[in-house]
Amino acid sequence: MDVSTIKNPKFLKKMSVNQMVDLAGDIRAFLIHKLSKTGGHLAPNLGVVELTLALHKVFHSPTDKLVWDVGHQSYVHKILTGRGDRFDTLRQYKGLCGFPKRSESEHDVWETGHSSTSLSAALGMAVARDLKQENFDVVAIIGDGALTGGMALEALNDIGHQKRNMIIVLNDNEMSIAPNVGALHNMLNRIRSANKYNRAKEDLEYLMKKIPAFGGKLASVAERLKDRLKYLLVSGVFFEELGITYLGPVDGHNLNALIDNLNYARKKKGPVIIHVLTQKGKGYRPAEMDEVGTWHGTGPYKIESGAFIKPVAVAPAYSQVVNDTLQELARHDKRIVVISPAMVVGSKLEGFAKEFPDRLFDVGIAEQHAATFAAGLATQNMKPILSIYSTFMQRAYDQIVHDICRQNLNVVIAVDRAGLVGADGETHQGIFDIGFLRSLPNLTIMMSKDENELRNMVYTATRYDRGPIVVRYPRGNGIGVGISERLEEIQIGSWDVLREGADMTVLSFGPMLQIILAAAKQLETDGIHLRVVNARFIKPMDHLMLADLGELGTPILTVEEGMLAGGFGSAVLEYYHDHGIHDLMIERMGIDDCFVEHGGVNELLNELGLTSKQIATHVKRMLKQQSKKNVVRKVITS
Amino acid sequence: MDVSTIKNPKFLKKMSVNQMVDLAGDIRAFLIHKLSKTGGHLAPNLGVVELTLALHKVFHSPTDKLVWDVGHQSYVHKILTGRGDRFDTLRQYKGLCGFPKRSESEHDVWETGHSSTSLSAALGMAVARDLKQENFDVVAIIGDGALTGGMALEALNDIGHQKRNMIIVLNDNEMSIAPNVGALHNMLNRIRSANKYNRAKEDLEYLMKKIPAFGGKLASVAERLKDRLKYLLVSGVFFEELGITYLGPVDGHNLNALIDNLNYARKKKGPVIIHVLTQKGKGYRPAEMDEVGTWHGTGPYKIESGAFIKPVAVAPAYSQVVNDTLQELARHDKRIVVISPAMVVGSKLEGFAKEFPDRLFDVGIAEQHAATFAAGLATQNMKPILSIYSTFMQRAYDQIVHDICRQNLNVVIAVDRAGLVGADGETHQGIFDIGFLRSLPNLTIMMSKDENELRNMVYTATRYDRGPIVVRYPRGNGIGVGISERLEEIQIGSWDVLREGADMTVLSFGPMLQIILAAAKQLETDGIHLRVVNARFIKPMDHLMLADLGELGTPILTVEEGMLAGGFGSAVLEYYHDHGIHDLMIERMGIDDCFVEHGGVNELLNELGLTSKQIATHVKRMLKQQSKKNVVRKVITS
Repeated sequence: MDVSTIKNPKFLKKMSVNQMVDLAGDIRAFLIHKLSKTGGHLAPNLGVVELTLALHKVFHSPTDKLVWDVGHQSYVHKILTGRGDRFDTLRQYKGLCGFPKRSESEHDVWETGHSSTSLSAALGMAVARDLKQENFDVVAIIGDGALTGGMALEALNDIGHQKRNMIIVLNDNEMSIAPNVGALHNMLNRIRSANKYNRAKEDLEYLMKKIPAFGGKLASVAERLKDRLKYLLVSGVFFEELGITYLGPVDGHNLNALIDNLNYARKKKGPVIIHVLTQKGKGYRPAEMDEVGTWHGTGPYKIESGAFIKPVAVAPAYSQVVNDTLQELARHDKRIVVISPAMVVGSKLEGFAKEFPDRLFDVGIAEQHAATFAAGLATQNMKPILSIYSTFMQRAYDQIVHDICRQNLNVVIAVDRAGLVGADGETHQGIFDIGFLRSLPNLTIMMSKDENELRNMVYTATRYDRGPIVVRYPRGNGIGVGISERLEEIQIGSWDVLREGADMTVLSFGPMLQIILAAAKQLETDGIHLRVVNARFIKPMDHLMLADLGELGTPILTVEEGMLAGGFGSAVLEYYHDHGIHDLMIERMGIDDCFVEHGGVNELLNELGLTSKQIATHVKRMLKQQSKKNVVRKVITS
Repeated sequence: MDVSTIKNPKFLKKMSVNQMVDLAGDIRAFLIHKLSKTGGHLAPNLGVVELTLALHKVFHSPTDKLVWDVGHQSYVHKILTGRGDRFDTLRQYKGLCGFPKRSESEHDVWETGHSSTSLSAALGMAVARDLKQENFDVVAIIGDGALTGGMALEALNDIGHQKRNMIIVLNDNEMSIAPNVGALHNMLNRIRSANKYNRAKEDLEYLMKKIPAFGGKLASVAERLKDRLKYLLVSGVFFEELGITYLGPVDGHNLNALIDNLNYARKKKGPVIIHVLTQKGKGYRPAEMDEVGTWHGTGPYKIESGAFIKPVAVAPAYSQVVNDTLQELARHDKRIVVISPAMVVGSKLEGFAKEFPDRLFDVGIAEQHAATFAAGLATQNMKPILSIYSTFMQRAYDQIVHDICRQNLNVVIAVDRAGLVGADGETHQGIFDIGFLRSLPNLTIMMSKDENELRNMVYTATRYDRGPIVVRYPRGNGIGVGISERLEEIQIGSWDVLREGADMTVLSFGPMLQIILAAAKQLETDGIHLRVVNARFIKPMDHLMLADLGELGTPILTVEEGMLAGGFGSAVLEYYHDHGIHDLMIERMGIDDCFVEHGGVNELLNELGLTSKQIATHVKRMLKQQSKKNVVRKVITS
């Protein structure tokens, strides 16, 4: 069938399982086709086609609540709830969101992007239902990778305690974003493969059947033992220990098995976990064969060959530069180790991982642990690099405050995807970190203007030994300046004038500088001369340069790809007012108190007023205001 | 012996267990005596006397690393490492810290205050040791309450995976800060009490002994079964499932058993968890009898009676006011529920818990889960109140950003202990939250000038339905204004002029206002007239009033009990520069880029320059500078 015509999932109720098998095929073909144009999270969605169909067959969304953890596996759900016709716009500006979005559909009851939130949210919904004496089912669908996130484990602990009716579907796809790590994963592996438990169960049943024949004490001991061991003998003793009924493992591509188990779980009292085994990329050979996760989230590709259609890169990715520099430095400095919370592929750390397998620690989705683990390493005079996306660093905020900064430990925090990230959208923009890091004592924060300066910043950070230091860098590729082999240490707190100009000074950092230089060029044609400063240290700032600029008295504009409240521009305001300079025209451009949805970075910058044209207009307005003021002054003084 | 003369723990190596038993008695007497004067964490420390002695007997600190989770149970460790002579200054300004502190002793290898960090830190130390091919033991001592914190569970997952040699001492004291909750706790309870496992083990052994006599298949099946079930039959299958060897439970007050188990664990390969059962308050009857946790952290008390010596309170505690108001409102509004991460006693929520046991959710030490659980409740039109200390809210930062603010859900965040907290010190000061909350879209933030206004703010918050709203309130008691029965809604974003004055305006909020009013009174005698504004909404600010003040043009001083960088004062700077007012004298007082150690709040305010005298001095300096400027202007304009 043409799945883009589906309006809502009600039609599934009347469908036979055979018909649903056909539909699964149609959905897969649809996804493979559509995503070959737009890109998106192909493999996770191919893995949950049958699971999603079974969920919508058994439950009545939106009355029953389906809570998708992380949410990048919700495409099939989007198709079944009437959004198939919008897949051409997937993850594009003003188009279909790549994650559940409440404003898109009443079937999206919970928005995600970050992992491990579904269990807490679902428990909240279950409690609300019970308090209001309503009657509906709550189902959280969580991957094995997300389950290792601390908050999911906190929630399991509470769920086992509260004993509400709710269903957890553990979507165990063997390979979450990165190859899965951790003891929990090993445990699931044991369940999956070994059949140790099932064999033990069979053995016990055999014994129990035989023993009563012998009668006497032996039989009664056996009976008691059987009773006592029963719950230890099921798979998933880990969950049973926490008070959660375990069902499974269930073949996640067998619709009958899925429907049966979901129906069974629905009738069970208390919390139930259904362990579903799925194959990521199921039905598309290149994605099925993927062992490292390149098909997790992809750009456009050629369907037949599975070859990615990549725009020709003018320069290496920023994250590649970080990896390469660290790899080079680690050869001479044995203290360098890298910690990544499940983002080895995302942050392009494969090179380091390959050369130094015992010095790269992928700790799974566990940002809090990652940060404090790095702090522990630093106490022993190691030089840990915590590689972390800006948005996921929000999870480690307390650990950065309490364990790293407060103890003033030499941890390098390599903050990937700082600034706008584009298609992943609202939940993934790296726009808060300057605000929440800048107020932390002992912390140094820097961001480079290009890939070569980034290389030198990584070098500088690994050599810095007076406390924690942050190197921010954006998603995507450098600007093509070329990489110099020579490494240069950058003086902490030093800014760099990229361009002189007498009329006004713009202070900025990172990729915004290119946009500002373009604005400066435009303004030059109007006879306006802009000084552009690479304010590469967000903390500490260049106090000498700030003082000089204060004396000059020309207007100052700060521009940042981040939240205005408490951001870099505020730091500049603070500096001048703290130093008794209360009459300088200072204005700030940045993100003004809103979340930023998905779209191309340039489209988003335009929406936020941060293109070179918009910046040039702002500069002109400021200069006009300034000259009016000067006229007034002149009138007064003359 | 006089334990205050102990210089280091080496003497324990030569001590007999009998002598150590005597020493344990001396240490208990010392703690009970000293803490009766200073207050402190009595019960946790009385519980770990034998455990700490055994640790220092078996291990060689500081070569071996003892990592105390939370750290409030480190007093015995402090005594044994030569700090007994400083206990008169415990938790006082410039005195002995209530938590491990690296600057105090080489035996304090890791600083804490917040819970659940020890496992990650210890793993970091173990990895560093292995990479550097050094040879020492790493021991983390963690309570059963702290174990439910998400990051501890993340760490367990990694520890089970990495298989380093390290020892986890699980100090299971049945009652952590609050009566323990959660499924993990129930599991530990089962191990403690039921002996179900041990009985099953005995039964299996009996069967196995008998069965071979029957020969044939039965015997071989039995043998295989025994092998397969072996690890399921030990207690602590939960930990064994994660790949961590479990020992215990061990009587935590039996020195022989402790020393034996620690020695055994030391020789074992891979990670080992020793489950130690201790009694909080052991050896001091009033603390032993405590069931709710009042002896966890206490003020001074009378040793004989166990009566607390409390200063006469002039007014109810702020947290009591919050509880009472919520209790009153909940009677009429069934949507109100309260969520607390293990701080029901700390935040004085016992009244609410008693009247509405099914609407108060103590989720254990699990701030992340608490926040998102509240968000889940809010999606179902409940009115959840997340009650959380400012400092612990740092753990829920991402959940507040990603789950609450981004989805714009009606969650009330009642932020307890906002501002300086005093004796708990550096790790507990609530001084970062304004900076990290203010940049979040959709969020409203307020703080009251006194206990009655707080009551009205709680009322306002529960009625507000346009998104999340924060009510901050300080530790300690109100100022004695009396509580009005009538509830009044406060207009969102409205400030209040507490005192008129033409020379200068001070903007502040919370308890600082009293200090500023005192400063205003002092200045009056010098003929300086201060306008004092209760800027009770930190976000949104009162734009009308700000505009009026901007037109007036008199200097503005902001004062806050929090970090200056990105704080409230910055918001004021931002407002004026965003509105084209670039020539207003605005200065800020607050905490300038440093962590704040323990001490009395007044002593700390003095150190930070925030007493009424210091504020008055600052005001005078500003006015002097302003008048100079005016003179210059006059000269120019005349």
